[in-house]
Amino acid sequence: MRLLGFLNKLNHNLAKSTARELPRRSMACSRYEYVKTYEQDDTILPNVWIVIRIDGKKFHKFSKTHNFEKPNDENALNVMNAAATAVMQEFRDVVLAYGQSDEYSFVFRKETAAFKRRSAKLLTYVTSLFSTSYVMQWPKWMNQPLAYAPCFDGRVVLYPSDENLRDYLSWRQADVHVNNLYNTAFWKLVLESGLSNQKAEERLRGTFSADKNELLFQEFGINYNNLPAMYRKGTILLRKRVISDGGDNDEKGRQAIVPLHEDLISSHFWKVHTEILGKYVPGTYRAPETMPRLVDLQLNAKQEQRGVEEEQKQPDNLAGIS
Amino acid sequence: MRLLGFLNKLNHNLAKSTARELPRRSMACSRYEYVKTYEQDDTILPNVWIVIRIDGKKFHKFSKTHNFEKPNDENALNVMNAAATAVMQEFRDVVLAYGQSDEYSFVFRKETAAFKRRSAKLLTYVTSLFSTSYVMQWPKWMNQPLAYAPCFDGRVVLYPSDENLRDYLSWRQADVHVNNLYNTAFWKLVLESGLSNQKAEERLRGTFSADKNELLFQEFGINYNNLPAMYRKGTILLRKRVISDGGDNDEKGRQAIVPLHEDLISSHFWKVHTEILGKYVPGTYRAPETMPRLVDLQLNAKQEQRGVEEEQKQPDNLAGIS
Amino acid sequence: MRLLGFLNKLNHNLAKSTARELPRRSMACSRYEYVKTYEQDDTILPNVWIVIRIDGKKFHKFSKTHNFEKPNDENALNVMNAAATAVMQEFRDVVLAYGQSDEYSFVFRKETAAFKRRSAKLLTYVTSLFSTSYVMQWPKWMNQPLAYAPCFDGRVVLYPSDENLRDYLSWRQADVHVNNLYNTAFWKLVLESGLSNQKAEERLRGTFSADKNELLFQEFGINYNNLPAMYRKGTILLRKRVISDGGDNDEKGRQAIVPLHEDLISSHFWKVHTEILGKYVPGTYRAPETMPRLVDLQLNAKQEQRGVEEEQKQPDNLAGIS
Amino acid sequence: MRLLGFLNKLNHNLAKSTARELPRRSMACSRYEYVKTYEQDDTILPNVWIVIRIDGKKFHKFSKTHNFEKPNDENALNVMNAAATAVMQEFRDVVLAYGQSDEYSFVFRKETAAFKRRSAKLLTYVTSLFSTSYVMQWPKWMNQPLAYAPCFDGRVVLYPSDENLRDYLSWRQADVHVNNLYNTAFWKLVLESGLSNQKAEERLRGTFSADKNELLFQEFGINYNNLPAMYRKGTILLRKRVISDGGDNDEKGRQAIVPLHEDLISSHFWKVHTEILGKYVPGTYRAPETMPRLVDLQLNAKQEQRGVEEEQKQPDNLAGIS
Repeated sequence: MRLLGFLNKLNHNLAKSTARELPRRSMACSRYEYVKTYEQDDTILPNVWIVIRIDGKKFHKFSKTHNFEKPNDENALNVMNAAATAVMQEFRDVVLAYGQSDEYSFVFRKETAAFKRRSAKLLTYVTSLFSTSYVMQWPKWMNQPLAYAPCFDGRVVLYPSDENLRDYLSWRQADVHVNNLYNTAFWKLVLESGLSNQKAEERLRGTFSADKNELLFQEFGINYNNLPAMYRKGTILLRKRVISDGGDNDEKGRQAIVPLHEDLISSHFWKVHTEILGKYVPGTYRAPETMPRLVDLQLNAKQEQRGVEEEQKQPDNLAGIS
Repeated sequence: MRLLGFLNKLNHNLAKSTARELPRRSMACSRYEYVKTYEQDDTILPNVWIVIRIDGKKFHKFSKTHNFEKPNDENALNVMNAAATAVMQEFRDVVLAYGQSDEYSFVFRKETAAFKRRSAKLLTYVTSLFSTSYVMQWPKWMNQPLAYAPCFDGRVVLYPSDENLRDYLSWRQADVHVNNLYNTAFWKLVLESGLSNQKAEERLRGTFSADKNELLFQEFGINYNNLPAMYRKGTILLRKRVISDGGDNDEKGRQAIVPLHEDLISSHFWKVHTEILGKYVPGTYRAPETMPRLVDLQLNAKQEQRGVEEEQKQPDNLAGIS
Repeated sequence: MRLLGFLNKLNHNLAKSTARELPRRSMACSRYEYVKTYEQDDTILPNVWIVIRIDGKKFHKFSKTHNFEKPNDENALNVMNAAATAVMQEFRDVVLAYGQSDEYSFVFRKETAAFKRRSAKLLTYVTSLFSTSYVMQWPKWMNQPLAYAPCFDGRVVLYPSDENLRDYLSWRQADVHVNNLYNTAFWKLVLESGLSNQKAEERLRGTFSADKNELLFQEFGINYNNLPAMYRKGTILLRKRVISDGGDNDEKGRQAIVPLHEDLISSHFWKVHTEILGKYVPGTYRAPETMPRLVDLQLNAKQEQRGVEEEQKQPDNLAGIS
Repeated sequence: MRLLGFLNKLNHNLAKSTARELPRRSMACSRYEYVKTYEQDDTILPNVWIVIRIDGKKFHKFSKTHNFEKPNDENALNVMNAAATAVMQEFRDVVLAYGQSDEYSFVFRKETAAFKRRSAKLLTYVTSLFSTSYVMQWPKWMNQPLAYAPCFDGRVVLYPSDENLRDYLSWRQADVHVNNLYNTAFWKLVLESGLSNQKAEERLRGTFSADKNELLFQEFGINYNNLPAMYRKGTILLRKRVISDGGDNDEKGRQAIVPLHEDLISSHFWKVHTEILGKYVPGTYRAPETMPRLVDLQLNAKQEQRGVEEEQKQPDNLAGIS
């Protein structure tokens, strides 16, 4: 015991002698601090639309591993939607998000001052929060556990004019149309007609949209236009005041992120949702008979939890409009 | 029934008429495609060390919500270490990772060609995989569930010379020393002496390292140098061939990401682990009596799973050395 | 003679033996060529106004050395204008240039594809041509030779919206007003009232524009508004078809870069010169009684020289509209 | 007269009334000032070699217009050298310049803090000063006047390691060798053998260096290695203390920019001129029998002029070593 005490003391004195040198170390700290100056400024040009697009990494394999339904897995798409909703709840300056397949685009309003418009900050916070939310939301929508950690890449693209922004979103929605029509036909041929992947591919090679529509109708009795809008149009997330017919006397409605599956290529969409390009005041959302679960989850979140979230959100809200 | 059939047919014909216009839409697709050209090149200068540092967002609050032990929560640190290990398993060109508190730095070798050195790709893949792995690893180390989705930011910093890189890592390790000594003293004063946070802060204001060492020894009988190295030095992750004394006849050892808690400010560290700055050949790791769980988990991962992982990893390995 | 011949032969054979190694050297050439990949892409975001502003380096000293008249040297300003005119003649995509004091701003139309929008190319060509033209134009306007080589710096600034661009130009013109009113009063006090520089400065400190106007009128009988517009408003260069009343039957007029000294802060300016923000078709310029020498020089340039210039210009004109 | 007085007074009062509004205008000034924030940071990463390369724009045509001797015009090359010398006199942090044909590269030492390492500032000052110096130096070396303003583009390239820098310079020198050997043979065939340009080209197509050497010797009695080193090796400019054998008792020698035409691909060059990569202390230059005019002009520059230049240079010298 006494020996132990002695050794302890010895050790302590050694520690102290090291400690004595610590002012040196502490100076060393400042000696190394110059490396901070190697960080480079990446502030984004003011007055441009900032789009952050996230893409799943190797989701072909991921969807196979987790047996996603083909050509569309409603639940898997809803995990994406739920993760994107979490991002929009956190970043009030995201005025619109658009998702399809394994990708999601987030549109920050032109004037956003979030994170002083530092590109890497915006990019990584959005990507990270989307990523963790995806994992957290997974068990709420899927029956099987995650086999491994999914991964998303992200990029920042800038669009100076409103027309550029609309064209960007139109590009993504035109993409989902082309892909989904093809995939719908392809998987029908494979799953119902028993064609091999290769044969199905050959069958569709060189066909026009009209041909695929015809094929779906003639061979499978399917009206492509009757398929769920989410598959054909992707998902548009907007911040709206939710008006539900039933009971809720709150005239103004409670604010939520709501999913729409509309055609955003047409100008009609932009006339209805003027808050996107214009002065940013959330519009109203008249809920359908069955409230989407995505919205329901938000409205039913407990008061106390909301309190916590709001507190947590505040510093990011500086530039936002609530 | 017939009416329904008729409506269905009508709808179908409408779909077809829309489809007829699809070549236009498809042209529209290419009409919008110009927006792709707005993506800007962000290729990183060749022949520089690429450091990606990840930081927890508002982890002060996060650690409070999840009742992290103060001043250090061993398990929470291991969630960080496990997430970083997942990143190193995926990115073979990361030659070293260094973590402390709620941050982790990943060092890509100068010559890496991963993702063609595109900055945003590297940055977001690392940030995303770290983020999802953090959530996935959480239940393996922590007793309580995650209350909400954590979030990390990331940044890319470039260091042209080996000296710059060493100074960067020294800067981070000097930082953990200064902070941990302070925090150790602070929480002793609060948790054991019953001081208020403010009183404890006042007590420590203006003190040197030697003073805090003395305080810990005199008042709490603690030798700072006896505290766990992980708290005092942070965690260095290296890729090593693991040699375990017990039984395993595999002479070369199996490769794993191993955690070290050494002083990397001294030149000794760099002489021992020559693979970092020199020709990249993993060194050996003589496992301590109790194999760290972090390594154990890797070594015991099932063969089949490894098979899957390797397949999955391949495309990223192009630039790596196995 | 024979010895010389022998030595020459020997030398030649040595040269040949070196030459034999040249394939190696030539391979060496390609061995070094990797350094080309270190050049980084600096393509400018599409669809934004590109402004290149050039500033004289240490022109305070330069104007002193060359005894510029104070507060304004008409001829020295015209050297600037003539150099800027040369830039606009070369770069057809510059729709407007604005100069005052020792600075000049060049506005490239949003859609310009000149030099593939590579930032450094645009920046250096404009800066270089302005610089050499300044030196070449000097003797046409100044009586004394250049004492040393002047030097200009340049920068690229991007403006997404038309409003941004107008505000930029308004900023520069508001600047010339503030400075010129001050300088006019200052130099009157120094040159006519015999105050020291310091005394003149003290006298003007804290005064408003109205005060300086009053001072000029009361003490020097000067109506500030009667002073030459070039001093008060700076010089706007536009590409116009010149209509001269006298003789020239060419209805369409000949195109030239013309100097205007108008108020561009007011919206009137933009209504008159719609070609700047709108579809780019040069407007007309009804020449004043005395044609500005800057325009005269252009119109009288010999045909043959113009032929040469046009040929020379062609490759740059690809993106321009003539 | 009275009327004129009245009108003048009226005008004055109008001016005053405008002036009254000037505080508004002055506020306007600050209202517009936000456009300044659109300028983006372009600070260069620390601790890398900064190379600025300047290239003549359309110098093929320029050399034709001014009847440059083919394949090399000694005087025209000296205008380039003299302009580059002016740049090195101004920028003390340029440790080496290398020129050939219509291009010149300037190497800033890794640690330079000139213009806070802002890329556009460095790039444009170098390009502008080179450009104006070229025009100013022209009449000192050429017999005919400049027909029009020449123009140069410039680019910034960064090299992290010394090896990269040497390889860059080797690349440029290997380039001059390949081109000059070809041009020498080509112009001999055209000017002396009377071949058309096309025939000469055909004759040389596919030949190796050894072949061209042989052709020069056999057909024109020329030892390529005897041709002036400046044509074969280009021009290296270094800052040296000039030791002249004749008379000058100044032991340390006077500092000047001196031209060398050595092989910089071999390591010998770097062992002799250790100041380039090592601690920056100018070496000595033992002048040849006939002092190059480029150096002579510097040494004979009047004391007073030097005084002026030094004053002028000071603010840029902050980061330099004299």
